[in-house]
Amino acid sequence: MRDAYHEELDSIGDGLVEMARLVGSAIGRATTALLDADLNIAESVIAADEKVDDLQRELETRAINLLARQQPVATDLRIVVTSLRMSADLERSGDLARHVAKLARLRFPVSAVPNDLHSTILEMGQLGQRLMAKAAEVVITKDVDDALQLEADDDRMDELHRALFQHLLDDRWKHGIETAVDVTLVGRYYERFADHAVSVAKRVVYLVTGEHVGAMSPAPTEVEGA
Amino acid sequence: MRDAYHEELDSIGDGLVEMARLVGSAIGRATTALLDADLNIAESVIAADEKVDDLQRELETRAINLLARQQPVATDLRIVVTSLRMSADLERSGDLARHVAKLARLRFPVSAVPNDLHSTILEMGQLGQRLMAKAAEVVITKDVDDALQLEADDDRMDELHRALFQHLLDDRWKHGIETAVDVTLVGRYYERFADHAVSVAKRVVYLVTGEHVGAMSPAPTEVEGA
Repeated sequence: MRDAYHEELDSIGDGLVEMARLVGSAIGRATTALLDADLNIAESVIAADEKVDDLQRELETRAINLLARQQPVATDLRIVVTSLRMSADLERSGDLARHVAKLARLRFPVSAVPNDLHSTILEMGQLGQRLMAKAAEVVITKDVDDALQLEADDDRMDELHRALFQHLLDDRWKHGIETAVDVTLVGRYYERFADHAVSVAKRVVYLVTGEHVGAMSPAPTEVEGA
Repeated sequence: MRDAYHEELDSIGDGLVEMARLVGSAIGRATTALLDADLNIAESVIAADEKVDDLQRELETRAINLLARQQPVATDLRIVVTSLRMSADLERSGDLARHVAKLARLRFPVSAVPNDLHSTILEMGQLGQRLMAKAAEVVITKDVDDALQLEADDDRMDELHRALFQHLLDDRWKHGIETAVDVTLVGRYYERFADHAVSVAKRVVYLVTGEHVGAMSPAPTEVEGA
């Protein structure tokens, strides 16, 4: 039997997992909207971000009430404070998915992404979704090895981001400045999205081991021009 | 006379003000490095960001210890939790100043920003620095009107950001794709920097009034192409 206190702690964890699922789905759908120039999907991603924001506010209220009423110490205190940080990562990830969807809407009825970059952006979107699903899993399992694995998985996002820049800066680029600007921003949204997923996983490592893994705030990758 | 507990709370506030001063100075110097292609200044901004990260870690440790030992409730609890969020905003602002400096370093010995955009970028840098100075002041004074004023001041950053995009997308743009990519990213760094300053100020409003002002996480402006 769990007491009310631990049930409350668990429900904060459930809220985080729910947020991660929503933003993971959002980045996948935003990518579809972007590549297929699908206005309905774009609108649905933009609208759905409110749910993520609501969840974050609920989670924060619950966490602060728990701190006030139960005054947890040691590990439990660390869980609550770390949950607040994770929820900030997830809320921000939702914003980034919404940015992708907004760009899809802005360029409708054409795709903001030229055909020769579709496969790169598709992989960035799928990878973002997968990283977020793994982050959610790690929040549940608290598996440190799996959590650390996310950073290695994120290397692929950096590769894709570099490939995007190489393509942009190739002399044969023929899509003009506006598309270059769009692709630059979109590339950064995916990269930051992945950073936040990695950050959530790193915070799980901190919870379990008490050790910070590198910088806890998402450290964007250095790419040419960024 | 202040007791040890309130001294500890005050010292968290002092840490926030110190962080805001450092990142405000960093964005100003990063702008100089970028426009003058000054490698020494760029390196100094990059190196100085460690100090900001250290301050954040110290502040977090102090806040968590305070929660554990003193178990504050009501207003004091809100101060501690909000301080944690402000420190995350400020740490991230420091990262953004560092990104600007890194771009300056990457393009050295030329400036990443073409001459015809120098005045726009200079104003963005100065405005970023000013917004952060105001945010620091508001953390000290807890003046709600001044805090709310920051959002109005931030409108100018949005105007400058739009002007940057208009210039980029003008048919007469003659600086090529690489510079367009650089300017796109730099514009976003300044805009996000300003968002975080506004966010710090909004959190002060929340502390004083208990009311959230709009979304508490920095909501990036919608600009053409973003």
